[in-house]
Amino acid sequence: MAPRTVDVPALVESARAGSPRAVARLISLVEDAHPALREVMAALAPHTGNAHIIGITGSPGVGKSTSTNALVAAYRKRGKRVGILAVDPSSPFSGGALLGDRVRMQDHALDPDVYIRSMASRGHLGGLSWTTPQALRVLDAAGCDVVLVETVGVGQSEVEIAGLADTTIVLLAPGMGDGIQAAKAGILEIGDVFVVNKADREGADATVRDIRHMISLGDRTEPGLWRPPVVKTVAAQGQGVDEVMESIDKHWSWMEAGGTLRERRVRRAGDEIEAIAIKALRERMGDLRQGQGVEELASEVVDGRTDPYAAADRVVDALA
Amino acid sequence: MAPRTVDVPALVESARAGSPRAVARLISLVEDAHPALREVMAALAPHTGNAHIIGITGSPGVGKSTSTNALVAAYRKRGKRVGILAVDPSSPFSGGALLGDRVRMQDHALDPDVYIRSMASRGHLGGLSWTTPQALRVLDAAGCDVVLVETVGVGQSEVEIAGLADTTIVLLAPGMGDGIQAAKAGILEIGDVFVVNKADREGADATVRDIRHMISLGDRTEPGLWRPPVVKTVAAQGQGVDEVMESIDKHWSWMEAGGTLRERRVRRAGDEIEAIAIKALRERMGDLRQGQGVEELASEVVDGRTDPYAAADRVVDALA
Repeated sequence: MAPRTVDVPALVESARAGSPRAVARLISLVEDAHPALREVMAALAPHTGNAHIIGITGSPGVGKSTSTNALVAAYRKRGKRVGILAVDPSSPFSGGALLGDRVRMQDHALDPDVYIRSMASRGHLGGLSWTTPQALRVLDAAGCDVVLVETVGVGQSEVEIAGLADTTIVLLAPGMGDGIQAAKAGILEIGDVFVVNKADREGADATVRDIRHMISLGDRTEPGLWRPPVVKTVAAQGQGVDEVMESIDKHWSWMEAGGTLRERRVRRAGDEIEAIAIKALRERMGDLRQGQGVEELASEVVDGRTDPYAAADRVVDALA
Repeated sequence: MAPRTVDVPALVESARAGSPRAVARLISLVEDAHPALREVMAALAPHTGNAHIIGITGSPGVGKSTSTNALVAAYRKRGKRVGILAVDPSSPFSGGALLGDRVRMQDHALDPDVYIRSMASRGHLGGLSWTTPQALRVLDAAGCDVVLVETVGVGQSEVEIAGLADTTIVLLAPGMGDGIQAAKAGILEIGDVFVVNKADREGADATVRDIRHMISLGDRTEPGLWRPPVVKTVAAQGQGVDEVMESIDKHWSWMEAGGTLRERRVRRAGDEIEAIAIKALRERMGDLRQGQGVEELASEVVDGRTDPYAAADRVVDALA
């Protein structure tokens, strides 16, 4: 059998039956942009839409892993299957981060109902925009009730993760940045639940006040809109985790009741479709350039016989 | 007359007759992605291909403006018309940079045969990839014999500018970075001429040696390939400028003789065509999303009735 041949139906069946190896293999296919992905996604489609996707973001040092750990424990107490996807937008490699996370998440490493995976989102094959949603689809179809997507807050990635999640938790820590910095970073708009972790440290109450104040200045105070709660935790000691769970539950109920859940998911699916379509068009463009079609047009432009717009029109026609 | 109406033939004629106002207006149309651009580019096409495009890049502090100034003076002595395009990849605004450059370039501010313009390349309407080449096209068609494109070396922009220029000059200064740092930044590959400016400072010879050594380790030592010279200058005092001009002339002759000039220009035109085509496709995609076509597909994905790949196929078909 050729090494690239994948028995998709068998793999999907194993993943749905709870095999961590099958899930791992499917996510690797996503990372590799494997040709079988198309068949994989078609096979997964009927089984998706059940997981609650929770994004967790925050600057390095706020306690993301500890908080994720605490949330996993809380969901496990409820008997939920949990997937954890750690996305490192700064690294093109996944090996190191994977190991690091496994070590950090050792509380759950042996639990068969907890699936832990790291992904490098920025690599040679593209960004958060199309790999992460597909990995989420795998975990969703594999029967996870909850998927926690953890990302390091590095610039744009925070905002991107909000686009992927049903509920976005923004983690802060006292002294790591006040409300104005949060506003600058754009995280006030993306947080559904704000958590001030390490709340036993000095300045925790000031940070909570800052964030509440900044939220009150936004447009989220209108009736019917979700007003993000600000919760204090000491995740390392499990303090405040119940309140975070309660906030997440409330946000879920609010989303279901008002139709926001479906709206967000439809917008998300639209983004995913668009990313795949653009990728397909770029690939066709690459074929065109290799096939000399674009080069002939480019020669005409260099000679002044046509202009780039007229040439681009012909390329677009050729792509169709 | 409606404010967006542009008399393209008159504007192009004025620009070709040497009107700085007409040139400025045409470049503003590029920055604004004005609908008349298509007509502008068609009108300019037969008049392009004459200018020698020289890219100048380097970290802040190496003396880019002073060096550009010195080169402009040298070209003016030869009676050449010179265009200067200062591209700031970090700023979405062009006003401030424009003023700054005008002040810095005051030696030439009143010379009718020197056209100076700043452009913000990273804005709401896109990056270096499609605005800068079109601005170059305007200056080329307006009769500039030489266009100097100056950019601050910020990450990827250095490499991008090399894709836009016939000849790329990389500026360095003693103590600002040795050969290994240059190698890391990827500038060893893009430089056609290396200039160590502020060569009256300590460490200049060591920097020259470093760069020469790093070049000797590359693949540019093969016969027939261009081996980039490393020239020392003190641009503020005009020292070494003749040697830089000589190196640029030699590079030009080498490119013309071996066909590299045409190769580079055809590749550049191909990149430009591709950027415009992708932009056009993205715009059609935006129309599709507003027109609910994508949203219906996204709803099907959310319901598990189809998968993102199958939906993307239908989007690609609809774009055609």
